[in-house]
Amino acid sequence: MSSRIGHNIQVQVFGESHGPAIGLVIDGLPAGIPLDHEAIGRQMARRAPGSGRHVTQRREPDQPQYLSGVYRDRTTGSPLCAIIPNTDTRSKDYATLADLPRPSHADYNAQVKYGGHADMRGGGHFSGRLTAPLVLAGAICAGALKDYGIEVGAHLIQVGDVKAPPVDARSVTARDLESLRTAPMGIADEAARQAAEDLLAQVRADGDSVGGLVECAAVGLPQGLGNPMADGLENRLAGAIFAIPGVRGIAFGAGFDACAMRGSVHNDPYDLEDGQIRPRTNRAGGVLGGISTGLPIISQVAFKPTPSIARAQDSVRLSTGQPEKLTIAGRHDPCIAIRAIPVVEAVTAIVLLDLLYDKGACHVPR
Amino acid sequence: MSSRIGHNIQVQVFGESHGPAIGLVIDGLPAGIPLDHEAIGRQMARRAPGSGRHVTQRREPDQPQYLSGVYRDRTTGSPLCAIIPNTDTRSKDYATLADLPRPSHADYNAQVKYGGHADMRGGGHFSGRLTAPLVLAGAICAGALKDYGIEVGAHLIQVGDVKAPPVDARSVTARDLESLRTAPMGIADEAARQAAEDLLAQVRADGDSVGGLVECAAVGLPQGLGNPMADGLENRLAGAIFAIPGVRGIAFGAGFDACAMRGSVHNDPYDLEDGQIRPRTNRAGGVLGGISTGLPIISQVAFKPTPSIARAQDSVRLSTGQPEKLTIAGRHDPCIAIRAIPVVEAVTAIVLLDLLYDKGACHVPR
Amino acid sequence: MSSRIGHNIQVQVFGESHGPAIGLVIDGLPAGIPLDHEAIGRQMARRAPGSGRHVTQRREPDQPQYLSGVYRDRTTGSPLCAIIPNTDTRSKDYATLADLPRPSHADYNAQVKYGGHADMRGGGHFSGRLTAPLVLAGAICAGALKDYGIEVGAHLIQVGDVKAPPVDARSVTARDLESLRTAPMGIADEAARQAAEDLLAQVRADGDSVGGLVECAAVGLPQGLGNPMADGLENRLAGAIFAIPGVRGIAFGAGFDACAMRGSVHNDPYDLEDGQIRPRTNRAGGVLGGISTGLPIISQVAFKPTPSIARAQDSVRLSTGQPEKLTIAGRHDPCIAIRAIPVVEAVTAIVLLDLLYDKGACHVPR
Amino acid sequence: MSSRIGHNIQVQVFGESHGPAIGLVIDGLPAGIPLDHEAIGRQMARRAPGSGRHVTQRREPDQPQYLSGVYRDRTTGSPLCAIIPNTDTRSKDYATLADLPRPSHADYNAQVKYGGHADMRGGGHFSGRLTAPLVLAGAICAGALKDYGIEVGAHLIQVGDVKAPPVDARSVTARDLESLRTAPMGIADEAARQAAEDLLAQVRADGDSVGGLVECAAVGLPQGLGNPMADGLENRLAGAIFAIPGVRGIAFGAGFDACAMRGSVHNDPYDLEDGQIRPRTNRAGGVLGGISTGLPIISQVAFKPTPSIARAQDSVRLSTGQPEKLTIAGRHDPCIAIRAIPVVEAVTAIVLLDLLYDKGACHVPR
Repeated sequence: MSSRIGHNIQVQVFGESHGPAIGLVIDGLPAGIPLDHEAIGRQMARRAPGSGRHVTQRREPDQPQYLSGVYRDRTTGSPLCAIIPNTDTRSKDYATLADLPRPSHADYNAQVKYGGHADMRGGGHFSGRLTAPLVLAGAICAGALKDYGIEVGAHLIQVGDVKAPPVDARSVTARDLESLRTAPMGIADEAARQAAEDLLAQVRADGDSVGGLVECAAVGLPQGLGNPMADGLENRLAGAIFAIPGVRGIAFGAGFDACAMRGSVHNDPYDLEDGQIRPRTNRAGGVLGGISTGLPIISQVAFKPTPSIARAQDSVRLSTGQPEKLTIAGRHDPCIAIRAIPVVEAVTAIVLLDLLYDKGACHVPR
Repeated sequence: MSSRIGHNIQVQVFGESHGPAIGLVIDGLPAGIPLDHEAIGRQMARRAPGSGRHVTQRREPDQPQYLSGVYRDRTTGSPLCAIIPNTDTRSKDYATLADLPRPSHADYNAQVKYGGHADMRGGGHFSGRLTAPLVLAGAICAGALKDYGIEVGAHLIQVGDVKAPPVDARSVTARDLESLRTAPMGIADEAARQAAEDLLAQVRADGDSVGGLVECAAVGLPQGLGNPMADGLENRLAGAIFAIPGVRGIAFGAGFDACAMRGSVHNDPYDLEDGQIRPRTNRAGGVLGGISTGLPIISQVAFKPTPSIARAQDSVRLSTGQPEKLTIAGRHDPCIAIRAIPVVEAVTAIVLLDLLYDKGACHVPR
Repeated sequence: MSSRIGHNIQVQVFGESHGPAIGLVIDGLPAGIPLDHEAIGRQMARRAPGSGRHVTQRREPDQPQYLSGVYRDRTTGSPLCAIIPNTDTRSKDYATLADLPRPSHADYNAQVKYGGHADMRGGGHFSGRLTAPLVLAGAICAGALKDYGIEVGAHLIQVGDVKAPPVDARSVTARDLESLRTAPMGIADEAARQAAEDLLAQVRADGDSVGGLVECAAVGLPQGLGNPMADGLENRLAGAIFAIPGVRGIAFGAGFDACAMRGSVHNDPYDLEDGQIRPRTNRAGGVLGGISTGLPIISQVAFKPTPSIARAQDSVRLSTGQPEKLTIAGRHDPCIAIRAIPVVEAVTAIVLLDLLYDKGACHVPR
Repeated sequence: MSSRIGHNIQVQVFGESHGPAIGLVIDGLPAGIPLDHEAIGRQMARRAPGSGRHVTQRREPDQPQYLSGVYRDRTTGSPLCAIIPNTDTRSKDYATLADLPRPSHADYNAQVKYGGHADMRGGGHFSGRLTAPLVLAGAICAGALKDYGIEVGAHLIQVGDVKAPPVDARSVTARDLESLRTAPMGIADEAARQAAEDLLAQVRADGDSVGGLVECAAVGLPQGLGNPMADGLENRLAGAIFAIPGVRGIAFGAGFDACAMRGSVHNDPYDLEDGQIRPRTNRAGGVLGGISTGLPIISQVAFKPTPSIARAQDSVRLSTGQPEKLTIAGRHDPCIAIRAIPVVEAVTAIVLLDLLYDKGACHVPR
């Protein structure tokens, strides 16, 4: 199925960029989970366009309307449906694009796959706008995770060639994650943020864009979540994270750096800590054999540069079959990774809650 | 479920390292797929221990016995079950490990998760030995893919800090992949291979290990395979690839390098090629919006260093609760990425065949 | 998951009887299926309350609003979401029921399962109103089935102790089904219908209700749909049909009568028919070994009497823990099986289309 | 997928009647479930051929060999694989059947579906022999259910036109079920059993067969298992029960008799019982709104007459395309429902355990 995440809970996203509304259905949520509308609104705002200097200017209130599954501000146990109306859909910006596909967008692929029947105005179902329901679902799941003492937070550790410091994989705390979540542009380190801002100003002046790297941490997970082989914590997280447009890769713990490391350096020896057996270091990123170790879950998610750039690009007009220069109008994020930060948190929260609901993984407290 | 890959076909792996047998069931395979036992044997041999200078010396014939689903050397359409008996299970090597968990192995995690009931001799269900049925499944699927003109091949592009050249992402051919598959140690470039061999000799002398990076390419896919958002080609491949023990990350196309790139460099402009619209370059790695573009699918899979090293390591004895030095006996691969090459091919072949069987993927006539 | 039907296409229903709206998401529909709004409206009207003498009087237009997945009156290939606002929700009728559960309704069960968090006004997610999105989904699927020459039709063969003639299981045609679908009260035979009307008038006068038996036939299916054992045509249809409130059983072909039959009578011998091998009779109901034979699919679906009756019934007040007489106000269908006819058709159409989309079911060319 | 039952645990059956072995993989079983080999053997024996006067004479020891997932007679948490070798496969009995399909068997359907590639000797994957692994899986699950105080038992309530008394749906106990399970021929009532034996003797003398009706009861379930609409207790049980060859229908509680009942008779009013709110009667069969009420789960499963009869039947020879009389050699059960009794128990046990493992359904005690 195209647009669903989770096993025990299932998040079904729907909608097209320029249709009447986008939205979601979450099936399988236990009854009684409180909806913290303020916390949800905060996450929605972090993802929303126009929320910072370096994000696109399209403005929509993104206020979810709950159609089912919520009663007196708590989940009912029935499928939860929420919709977000599309109010600011200037189709004219995209009118010419159907016939002249944008490089590194899904436009042309979708036309072939769907035989010309897809509603591709504004990118259709492939639009970054579809991450709004993901963030909503993630914020609801994050509320449920709080009951288990689990917190998820993400930030930027790379924008173009500017790097920002990662979290301490062994000792990062919920409080650290909270401060990351409120850092402007998702970069807590001031020097790095200034360098990133300078780079983005330059990129924008060049009519160009850059990629970025999001690091996500989850703390408070019990040991034992996940399964061996094909249903491991990484399998489920990796299988879901590519739902976010623009993701090019995901890695855990030492990640791709592990390729160059020696075992004697990469291995996490066991220690006693308050009478508990714990790995002394966390190069594993909190997961061994597909199963959580009890240390923070650390992932890196790589984003490509925004494919919509102001510069003229080569394309081919479908109706004529002739090459043609394409110029994309409108303003676009110079770096999609920035607004993607809460989306990575959201998908991570959905998957972790789903893992918590695995049979026997942990006692469901409600 | 712990050990299953695929939607339309489902590969269920079972077994423990020191049990009577390991094996698989593949449900959903169409009837009539021929089993090329020679091709299957070749792939099994590439994965088998003792097949090269730098792989572990444990020797098992790994001859699959087909119990069901095969008749006159073709699939019947019923679930295919094949088993591989375990013949060389020297439990004494591992006897002490249950009580003294190996760092960066799943030993301790599994004990906690399964309440002491898991059969962890030799790593149990978490053992690298469980990749043998994966390779068998992949070889069967690769046979089916050949009918569609699709070929999969992988090789090493990094061993420790030694790098080897990647394939040409835009123009790699089935013939190129064939020659990669027969390259000693999975490295076709002689200088790189010599450097890798020198490094591995040193690593082994040091009682240590190194990580490695596998690149996998698939050619011949039609445009249009996959789906948007949560069921994209990357989602399904990434969700499956972590079934291989030791994987720390997966990326597509330009991968993590895309973080530092500009959009004007990363974008793949459209060209006409023999009257067909095709991306001029393939930084996307053959997939846009979760859907194949018709260009080669290019992935990189990062492997951590072999966690079993000869050096003494810190652990904690479970029965006493006291710290203790652990020394792992036996011979182990200095770099698990080498024998993982055919496993990456196998999982890729399983997932691609599964995608081909998606409704409408191959033009179900209406 | 609570509310989803199908494998290749998935129909997710959501909503509560007295919430803002009910609706559905269908994921996995191919692009380009035309929506015949007139045909959809006809099916919706057959299910709607107030559409006949013997159905409840609550009136709602039940006009679906499409939020996604439809463009220019055809499916886009993206998830289709449609909502039906709830406009006539007189909560007062049900206000007292939360505390005094209705016998043979889900009220009390739901309160226990959901810890008091369910929105049970009007039956909540368990209400018969939730069959409206099922009918909508079925009508869309029936439109797609027409392209394959497949038609589904249902009617009543029993109301209380009044019986009506079944279809000819061997030779029923699409035209026969069309006339069944337009028969008043779902009974084409006039004498039977008159007897049923008399019975229902009596039942209503008694403040009581009766059960009923729906027979459903599907014609035009190719031979070979379905699978052995756990994924057979009957498994998938039976697993879905219980989604309809009030269903107590399902049977195929000779059904429960087969228990008393001899093999020599029940077996369907093979004949040649226009050079084709076909069963001479159809006691199998069109399916052998979980796989369609090419003859009509015949099922019987048993409905219990409407549990809401006008007579006083014994219940227990939850807040006091004391026995108390319950009298249900409002008007209710004396026989829910009547309005259930198009719902049985709908679920059958969804499942048959889903089966058609099975890999290889429609000859995916290799 | 053709041969898998369950969501949280998944039972995958494999094998063909005349292949090397049949068997199963159960994925998702928690670790630590003890295997009671004696209890398992008893259930296997009840299903085995040759175990009574009225069952077929083919004899196989049906001793399962555990290949994985079991260690020291307990489940390990890894996939459990067990195989049962086929030792008594007299292919000659069936040699001519491939070309002359047996009426009301899957022979011809399978040939069409699988393009002639299926191994149909002895019925292949469609053979009743495949119920042996189902019984094994059910016996393992029944062992796990005992820990929750849940017992499942089935018996015959009809053989041809001979009826036997059903259980008391409201008050049946685990002890009652135990005595049903040991009743000869699955009929505890002596007069009914004698009448059934007489009928079967006559049927056998006539070279014929009869159908039968199995009633299954499960006691000890907590209230609250299951879900509304498409994932209800009945949906999951019905979707699984058709995995048993020869099943023509399933019903719950009053079942098809409910069609003729009035609401005032069928409804189960609420009573106080030891301070608990309980339905006074159990016409619902223990389930309302897809959710268990805490009363016994009562189902009826209808079986068709054994399709293999000694009398000559009409068929068509595939190779010549000419009608031809078919005479089936060998001895066959005159009533498959008898040996199906433990299979119905098995499938019920699998599904109930699976429901118990639903998120939040109940605390997993291990």
